[in-house]
Amino acid sequence: MKTIASRHNPSFKRLREALRRPEQEIALEGRKQVEDAIAAGWKPALLVTRGPIREDAVAFTPELFDALSDTSTPQDLIGLFLRPRHDAGDILRSGRAPVVVLDAVQDPGNVGTIIRLAAAFDCAGVILLHGCADAYSPKAVRASAGAILAVPVAQARARAVLDSGLPLFAADARGAPIDPPAREAALVFGSEGGGVSNELLLAATAIRIPMSGRVESLNVAASAAILLARSFAIRGT
Amino acid sequence: MKTIASRHNPSFKRLREALRRPEQEIALEGRKQVEDAIAAGWKPALLVTRGPIREDAVAFTPELFDALSDTSTPQDLIGLFLRPRHDAGDILRSGRAPVVVLDAVQDPGNVGTIIRLAAAFDCAGVILLHGCADAYSPKAVRASAGAILAVPVAQARARAVLDSGLPLFAADARGAPIDPPAREAALVFGSEGGGVSNELLLAATAIRIPMSGRVESLNVAASAAILLARSFAIRGT
Repeated sequence: MKTIASRHNPSFKRLREALRRPEQEIALEGRKQVEDAIAAGWKPALLVTRGPIREDAVAFTPELFDALSDTSTPQDLIGLFLRPRHDAGDILRSGRAPVVVLDAVQDPGNVGTIIRLAAAFDCAGVILLHGCADAYSPKAVRASAGAILAVPVAQARARAVLDSGLPLFAADARGAPIDPPAREAALVFGSEGGGVSNELLLAATAIRIPMSGRVESLNVAASAAILLARSFAIRGT
Repeated sequence: MKTIASRHNPSFKRLREALRRPEQEIALEGRKQVEDAIAAGWKPALLVTRGPIREDAVAFTPELFDALSDTSTPQDLIGLFLRPRHDAGDILRSGRAPVVVLDAVQDPGNVGTIIRLAAAFDCAGVILLHGCADAYSPKAVRASAGAILAVPVAQARARAVLDSGLPLFAADARGAPIDPPAREAALVFGSEGGGVSNELLLAATAIRIPMSGRVESLNVAASAAILLARSFAIRGT
């Protein structure tokens, strides 16, 4: 099969669309992420390589391949997968481990990192409220290290979380230094500047992570790492 | 005082040097970081604003100011501070909370985030081994959220850590699911791809963070968040 060099090629256009507007399909970049996804049972809709290096993939010239990505990390494989669709109601009703709720977490790297943490610590899913970065953008998918396929993620309104009946907890520096919930609950993390919005905060038990007075706050992904790891540790005992 | 528009202005050159090669002075970007540093007792060597907005600062035109930064986050204040100098031996001998040791952590965002965590959880300092990103680069300083001034950071060889006599622990997926050390110890985190190098790993007690089988590993800053928070929590009890 010949190596594709043209930007008019349909595979190029399809991949570019998935990277720019991941509405239908999402792109996983890098051998490890793509192969892990395939090993986990996901069927790639399209595999594209930098140069002709594998038979099951469409080969682009290095120039064409490099035109696709905004990352400086050299990759030689991109896989296109159907964008997963999950229902926020299903996630909120799944009733086992805590549901992670993100409130205006704008940085796609943080959103992706927290999705990876939700997979690592076996959460029921991730709910994105108003003002969050797109979980399927290339930056978020990259930060999730492939976990975007392993964790149910959906957008919802704060009202849906409030109406779910789940006990509500929020990471907040003014809270009590208590353990996070181990099971059925919603655990809300807010933006680094604004914190959790009042609508949710007023209905929630606020949890503070004990720390020294040398910093004022933690990065939201660091807070999530600490509380989700702790929730998983308690669940296991 | 007039607003400076020229790239030949000495303040512009000095600030650009601190952003490109932070050997003598380091730049803190943003009102919050600069004002927190001043409140903590640090004396800025130079303050520069985007337009004439405060009397104690040199005003640049917005065009000149924007030419300095590679971040997309709009800021209007940069402060220049003397680069802190710490001795690795002093950090390793400080004998109280654990010392964080980073082994080939290449991403400046991760290095900065871990420095912020070391401040939050009151570690004795951060030792950077071969292959780590520069802790004083603008990206790392930004991720540290000002903590770069609050935590002793120094470069060292692995040999210095081994010879310090400190009990050695390493974050490693093949380790035991035990608590991290609460006091005098060195806690090593490796690169996401390569992990902790064998030279240190062989001399260390490996600690695994318990997690589900849904992901293979965590981001190094997430691992650090979990273990350092836990170390701080145990220390307090």
